[in-house]
Amino acid sequence: MPAQKKSEFLADYHEDFNQWYVDVVLKTKLADYAPVAGCMVIRPYGYALWENMVAALDRMFKETGHENYYFPALIPESFLQKEADHVEGFAPECAVVTHGGGKELDEPLVFRPTSETIIWSTYAKWIHSYRDLPLLYNQWANIVRWEMRTRLFLRTTEFLWQEGHTAHATAEEAEQETLRMLEVYRRFAEDYMAIPVICGEKTERERFAGAVRTYSIEAMMGDKRALQSGTSHFLGQNFAKAFNVQFQDEKGDLQYVWGTSWGVSTRLIGAIVMAHGDAQGLVLPPRLAPIQVVIVPIYRKDQDAAKVLAAAGKLRDSLSPIARVKLDDREGLKPGFKFNDWEMQGVPLRVELGPRDLESNACVIARRDTGDKETVPQTGAPARITELLEAVQQGVYDRALAFREANTCTVDDYDEFRARMEQGAFVLAHWDGTTETEELISQETKATIRCIPFDGDEQPGRCVRTGAPSARRVLFAKAY
Amino acid sequence: MPAQKKSEFLADYHEDFNQWYVDVVLKTKLADYAPVAGCMVIRPYGYALWENMVAALDRMFKETGHENYYFPALIPESFLQKEADHVEGFAPECAVVTHGGGKELDEPLVFRPTSETIIWSTYAKWIHSYRDLPLLYNQWANIVRWEMRTRLFLRTTEFLWQEGHTAHATAEEAEQETLRMLEVYRRFAEDYMAIPVICGEKTERERFAGAVRTYSIEAMMGDKRALQSGTSHFLGQNFAKAFNVQFQDEKGDLQYVWGTSWGVSTRLIGAIVMAHGDAQGLVLPPRLAPIQVVIVPIYRKDQDAAKVLAAAGKLRDSLSPIARVKLDDREGLKPGFKFNDWEMQGVPLRVELGPRDLESNACVIARRDTGDKETVPQTGAPARITELLEAVQQGVYDRALAFREANTCTVDDYDEFRARMEQGAFVLAHWDGTTETEELISQETKATIRCIPFDGDEQPGRCVRTGAPSARRVLFAKAY
Repeated sequence: MPAQKKSEFLADYHEDFNQWYVDVVLKTKLADYAPVAGCMVIRPYGYALWENMVAALDRMFKETGHENYYFPALIPESFLQKEADHVEGFAPECAVVTHGGGKELDEPLVFRPTSETIIWSTYAKWIHSYRDLPLLYNQWANIVRWEMRTRLFLRTTEFLWQEGHTAHATAEEAEQETLRMLEVYRRFAEDYMAIPVICGEKTERERFAGAVRTYSIEAMMGDKRALQSGTSHFLGQNFAKAFNVQFQDEKGDLQYVWGTSWGVSTRLIGAIVMAHGDAQGLVLPPRLAPIQVVIVPIYRKDQDAAKVLAAAGKLRDSLSPIARVKLDDREGLKPGFKFNDWEMQGVPLRVELGPRDLESNACVIARRDTGDKETVPQTGAPARITELLEAVQQGVYDRALAFREANTCTVDDYDEFRARMEQGAFVLAHWDGTTETEELISQETKATIRCIPFDGDEQPGRCVRTGAPSARRVLFAKAY
Repeated sequence: MPAQKKSEFLADYHEDFNQWYVDVVLKTKLADYAPVAGCMVIRPYGYALWENMVAALDRMFKETGHENYYFPALIPESFLQKEADHVEGFAPECAVVTHGGGKELDEPLVFRPTSETIIWSTYAKWIHSYRDLPLLYNQWANIVRWEMRTRLFLRTTEFLWQEGHTAHATAEEAEQETLRMLEVYRRFAEDYMAIPVICGEKTERERFAGAVRTYSIEAMMGDKRALQSGTSHFLGQNFAKAFNVQFQDEKGDLQYVWGTSWGVSTRLIGAIVMAHGDAQGLVLPPRLAPIQVVIVPIYRKDQDAAKVLAAAGKLRDSLSPIARVKLDDREGLKPGFKFNDWEMQGVPLRVELGPRDLESNACVIARRDTGDKETVPQTGAPARITELLEAVQQGVYDRALAFREANTCTVDDYDEFRARMEQGAFVLAHWDGTTETEELISQETKATIRCIPFDGDEQPGRCVRTGAPSARRVLFAKAY
C-alpha cells in the first residue's frame, strides 16, 4: 500500500487494522452504530456506495434473465423446521416475533434469516407443469440474524442483501444456474469492486444449511485475511421435498423441482474498505465511488475567490456529463484540510484549481490510489479524467491482485503452515477431505478452508496435518 | 370507463368492485397472498411496476436535494413511548420481537411501524450546530403495522415504502420542505401515475401521530371512493424535544430542531389498479408500465409462422430503443387469447402483425385505454408508438380527471349529503371544525374528511350537519 503517511483521524493501518477499519467506517460516515446492539445505520455516503453496487448487480441479474419480486419479512416459525439442516443452521440465530397488535400470536414468526422456506412454500402454488419452469427470481431485502460478535458491515444483526431463488426442471440446469450466478459475482467483484476473487466450492462444514453444494468467491483483505464475498447454492431437491413442490414433466410424470439460491450483502461494503483502503483512509474503485472527482478551488486572497470559484464551477459543469463530480466550495477550510478529507473519503480523483492555473488555463489532477499528480489544460480535463478513472479502476485492481499473489503460498509442512497463518496468508495445502481434520486445523491455527478452488493445482498429495492421502490442494486462510 | 365487455376471469367491475379488485391483482399476477395472514407476495409484474415508481420518485427526491440512508428495522419499544401521541397511535399496531438468538431479550423490540423515533434518537448524535442543518434524507424500507382488516396493496401487515426525515433550523424552512414534498407527490401522482389528486391539510383527527400538521394527496378510485395516496408531515419540534435534538444557532444559543417526514408506499400500486382499471382488467399508465408495447404475431398456417415471427422480431428490435417492448411468441395460443391476456395485464399498446401486414409493410396498433386501432407502416412504427404512448398517458389522466369531476359535488343539505355518500362521491361541504361533528358524520355516513383542500372554495357558511358556522368547505368521501 503506497500511502504510508499516518492519518491523524485513524488508528494505524499496520499496527491496528481492526481499529483502523472501525475508524474509517465511522469517520468517513459510511455507517454509524444504531441503538440496538449489533445493528447499524448505513449513512448517506455508505448508502450511495450500496446504491451503485445494487444498480450494477441488478443490471447483471436482469441481463441473465432474472426478475425481482418481494416476499414478506415474517416467516412462520414452523416453516424453518421443514428442512432438517436448515432449521439446525438458522433457528439459533432467529429474532422471533411473539406479539402482534397487542396480542400473543398463535404461532411465533421469525424475521427472515434467509427466505428459502417462505419462497418454496409459495413455489408449490406457482409450479405445476414443466411449462412453469424455470423460475428465475431475485429479491432485494433486509435480513436479521442474531449475531453475538458483530462488526460494522461484516457481521451485523440486520443487513441488506439480495437473494436469488430459482427453480428448474433438471439438476443440470440448476447446477448451471448456480455456477452462472457465481460467475456474475466474480465479474461484479473484479470489474466493479476491483477485488480479485478465488472461485471454488465450499467443504461440507462450510456449506449453506440446506444446500447440496455451496460455491463462493473469496477475497483477500488488507490484513491478509479472507472475506467470503458471495455464495451460490445448488439446493438439489431439498426444499422442493420439504415443501412438496412437484411438476408434471413432458411425459406427464410428477417430479420434484430442482433449486438454487445465491446472495451477496452489504458486507461487500466492508470488503471494499478492507481490500483497498490504506493509512489515509478509503480508496474507492471509480465505478462504484459515490463521488468520482472532487474539485478543490485554491485561493489565498479573498479577491481571487470569486474568479477561482467561477472557473471551478465551469469545470464541474464540463465534467458532470462524464463523471460523478463534486465541487468542494466550503468556506473557511484550507485546501490542505480538504485534500486530506477527500483522501480519507477515498475519492478517486482530485482536481486542484488555483489563480495561476486560471492564467494558464490548466488544472492539476491527483490520483488517490498512487498519489500521482499531473497538470492538464482545463479544456482537456474531461477526456483525461475519463482515461484516469479507468486507469484508477485498473490500478486498484492490479494492486489488490499483486498483494494477494505476494501473500499466497503453497505449503506442505505443518509448522510452516502454522507460521504462515500466524503472519496472515492464503495457503494452498493438501487436506485429507475429512471434517475432523478441518476442525482440528481450525482449532490449532484459526484458519479454515475457504474453498476448493476451481482453478487450483489438482495434483494429489498428503494432508498437511494428518499425512493421509489428499486428492488436491485447497485454500486455507483466517477469515472474517 | 369505455371497456364494458365483461372479462371471463374477473368479477363484474360495476356490480362487485371489491372482488374485481382482488381478481385483477391475483389474475394479473401483481401479487399473491402470503402464508402469514395479512402479508402479501409482490410478484414480478407488480414489483416491476414498483421499480418504475421507485426510480421516478427517487430521481425526484434527489433533484430536490435529498440523499438516501438506511436505519435498522428493529426499534427498542421504549423509543416509541418518548413521544406521547406517537406511542398512542402506533403501539397498538406493533409487531414485537421478544426473543433473539434463543434468549428472551432484556427489552422487546418493535418492527418499525415508521421510523421517526429511531431516526431522531440518532439525529441527536449528528446535529450539533446550525452548520449541520438541514438534513435532507430519505429511506426505502419495509414497514410492519398489525392490521386487522387487510387488503392487497391497500392495507397489508407488511408493506414497502419510502420515508423522508428532514431536520431544519427554522419552522419556516421545515414547513416549506413539508409542502415541497407534497408537491413532489402531486407531480408524481399526476405525471407518472396519471391520477389527478387533491392536495390539502388533514384535520386533527386524521393527523399523523406526532405531527403538528399533516398534508395529503387524495385520489378518486373507480368506485368513487377516496384513496389517501401520500402524506407529508410538519413535525414541529415534537420529536426534537422527545429525543433532545438541539443545535447551536449562529448566535450561540441552543434551539430545538424542526422536523418533517413524508411517505408513499406500495399502496400506490392499488391506486393505479383502482383509478384506471376497467371491466377487462388493468390499464397501466405508459410511464410506469413494465411492458409498454406488446407485439402479437398473427398467423393461421404454419408456413407463415417463420416469416411473421421474423418480421415481429425485427419490429421488436426497432422499438426496444424507445419503449419497453415484449414480443409474445408463445406457441399454441390463439391471437384472440393473447389480446385478452395483454388487455387484462393493462399493456398500453398492442401491435398486431400478420401475413397481409408483411406484404404491405404495415402493422396495426391498438390502444388499451380507448380500444382505438390504426394501421401504420412498419418503418413508421417507432415514431408513432412514441406519440401514442404520450397520448395514452394523457388520455388515461384526462379520463380519470373527467371521472372525478363528474363525481364531485358541492352539497349544503345533509339528506343530499347522505344520498351522495350512498352513491359514492367527493363532496365539498361545510363543517363546523370540531372533531365531534367529524366523528358524528363518519358514524352516520361512513364518510370522512379527506382534507381541507388548498384550492377550495373559501366562502364561509354553515356546517352541513350542525348548522354551526364554518370557515370553508372541506372534502368528504368514503375512503379506503
